[in-house]
Amino acid sequence: MSLLVVGSVAFDDLTTPFGRREHALGGSATYFSLSASRFHPVRIVAVVGDDFGPEQLRVFDHRPIDLKGLSKVKGLSFHWKGEYGYDLNEAKTLATDLNVFADFRPVLPAGYKESEYLFLGNIDPVLQLEVVRQMTTRPKWIALDTMNYWIRGARPALEAVLSEVDILLVNDAEVRELTQDNSLIKAYRKVQAMGPRILVVKRGEYGVAIFTPEGIFAAPAYPLEDVFDPTGAGDTFAGGFLGYLAWMERMDVTALKHATLVGSVMASFTVEQFSTERLEQISQDEVRNRLSLFSDMIRVEDL
Amino acid sequence: MSLLVVGSVAFDDLTTPFGRREHALGGSATYFSLSASRFHPVRIVAVVGDDFGPEQLRVFDHRPIDLKGLSKVKGLSFHWKGEYGYDLNEAKTLATDLNVFADFRPVLPAGYKESEYLFLGNIDPVLQLEVVRQMTTRPKWIALDTMNYWIRGARPALEAVLSEVDILLVNDAEVRELTQDNSLIKAYRKVQAMGPRILVVKRGEYGVAIFTPEGIFAAPAYPLEDVFDPTGAGDTFAGGFLGYLAWMERMDVTALKHATLVGSVMASFTVEQFSTERLEQISQDEVRNRLSLFSDMIRVEDL
Repeated sequence: MSLLVVGSVAFDDLTTPFGRREHALGGSATYFSLSASRFHPVRIVAVVGDDFGPEQLRVFDHRPIDLKGLSKVKGLSFHWKGEYGYDLNEAKTLATDLNVFADFRPVLPAGYKESEYLFLGNIDPVLQLEVVRQMTTRPKWIALDTMNYWIRGARPALEAVLSEVDILLVNDAEVRELTQDNSLIKAYRKVQAMGPRILVVKRGEYGVAIFTPEGIFAAPAYPLEDVFDPTGAGDTFAGGFLGYLAWMERMDVTALKHATLVGSVMASFTVEQFSTERLEQISQDEVRNRLSLFSDMIRVEDL
Repeated sequence: MSLLVVGSVAFDDLTTPFGRREHALGGSATYFSLSASRFHPVRIVAVVGDDFGPEQLRVFDHRPIDLKGLSKVKGLSFHWKGEYGYDLNEAKTLATDLNVFADFRPVLPAGYKESEYLFLGNIDPVLQLEVVRQMTTRPKWIALDTMNYWIRGARPALEAVLSEVDILLVNDAEVRELTQDNSLIKAYRKVQAMGPRILVVKRGEYGVAIFTPEGIFAAPAYPLEDVFDPTGAGDTFAGGFLGYLAWMERMDVTALKHATLVGSVMASFTVEQFSTERLEQISQDEVRNRLSLFSDMIRVEDL
C-alpha cells in the first residue's frame, strides 16, 4: 500500500524579492513526499551526497515516508541556484550542479517493486523508464512529470516511457511543445495517443486544468496575500493531487476534481515560505480549513 | 432602463495564424453592445466616419441597441491593424489610426443622461470623466475599462474618474501597473482605496478573477477546441458580465459569479470567428447550452 516517487532530493540556493536562503532543502521528491504523505504512505527513490546529514533527514521523520530507496553516496548532493523577479512566475536558473545525481541509476529495493502507485518525477526519461521496468507488478496508475529539456533532448525515451503512463503532469508550455499544438483540447488528444489518459496542466498562479476522457475541469490557484518562494509548488501540487487519489483509491472525475483542490491547497502553503519551511509545519486543520475556503470560493450556485 | 456604453466603433485589419480580415467591424462599444444587448437594452455613445455606412450599421439592427448617441462625422473611422502569433495571448499592434476619434468629445443625447447603468470603455480617462459629469442622475453602477497607456500617461485623470467608479475591469498586468503591487489581493485593497469596490481581472485564456468586499471568485475560461481571433474578447466579456448584472438588478456575490460565467461564455463565441462574425449569429439556445456545459465543468461536489 504505497506510493513510490522517483525524483531528486537536493539543496537549493533561492533568491526572491523577499529574501534569500542558501543550502535550503529542495528537490522534486522532497516536496512531493512531504505533500503526498499527508494522504498516503510514500516511498522515495533518490540519491544524495555525504553532505546530506541527519539534520536534513529529520524533516522526513514521523511521517509515513520510507527512505530505504534513498541512497547516500560519496560527493555533493544535487544543487540548484535560482532567482525570481517580482512576477514570480518564472525562475531564472543561475546554476545547476548535478553532482551525485549525474551518475544516478535508480535501483528499487525489493519491497518497492510491487508499489501500488508510481510517480516519476522530472528526471531523465531513460531513468524513468528503468524504474517502470523494475516494477514486478504493474502499478494501479503511473504518473509522470517532465520538462522542455527532455521534450527537446530525449524525445524517443520520453515517448517510450509515456506509453506506460496514465497521468501526465506538465505546464502549458511543456504540453504545447510536446504536442506542437496550441489548443489544449487538441493537445490532449495527442497526449492520449501517446499513452496517458489523463492530462494535468499546471498553470502557476492561474491554477490547473485537467483533461480526462469524461471531460475537462479547471480550477484557479488558491489566492494568497503573499507569495514568498514559488520553488516546489508544482511538486507539492503533484504530491497532494496524487496522494489524495491514492488515498481515495478512485480516479473518477469527482475524485480528480477534489484531488485538484487538495493539490492546489498544498501548493499554496509551500509558496508562503522559503523551501519546505511552511510545508513541514502545516496542521491537518489548516489543510482542512483552506480546502473549505477554497471550495466555497469556486462554488457557483445553479444558474 | 438602459445600459449606456461609451467606447469605440471601428474598423480592424486582423491577421492570425488562421487567416486575415481587412476592414472588419471592431471597437470596444461594438463588441460590448452586441454582447450586453442579449441581456439588457444598450445605448451607444461613439463616433464613426463617413466610411461607416448602412452595411456596417445593419449588425445593430433588430437588437435593443440605441444608436442615437453614435455620431457620424466627415473623415475616416478609427482603424486598428493587429497581428497575433500562435500563442494568441498578445496582439502585436501594427497601426492605430485614430482618425475621427482624435477629436471625439462624447456628448450624451438628452435621454441618455438618466441611464441606469454606465460602462466607460477603454478611452482617454478625460473623456470618461466628461461622460460621468454629463449624467444628471447617478447611475446605479459605473464600470470602467482602461489600459497601460492611460495608467502611465493620464494618471491624474484616471484617478479622478476611478473615484466615481464601482467596477473596474482590467487585466493582470494593468492592475499590477496601476497599483504597483504584484499580489492581486493587495492590489485589490489599493483599487478599493481609489474608488471601485469590485475588481474584475481578465486573464485571457486563464479566465477571470473577481474581487469583492464579500470575497474572491475565480473561473477558468470556457475551453475551446480552436481560437481563431481573440480580438474583442475582453469587451465581449464586459458586455455579457455587465449586461447580465443590469438584467438581474443585483450585485451580490452569486450574481457576480453568474455574470462571470455569462461573460466568459459570450467571449468564447467571439473568439471562434473573426471580428463579430460569430457574436452576431449565436442563438439564445447556444448561449444557454454553453452556460450549462460550463457550469457542469467547474462544479465541484462537496468534499
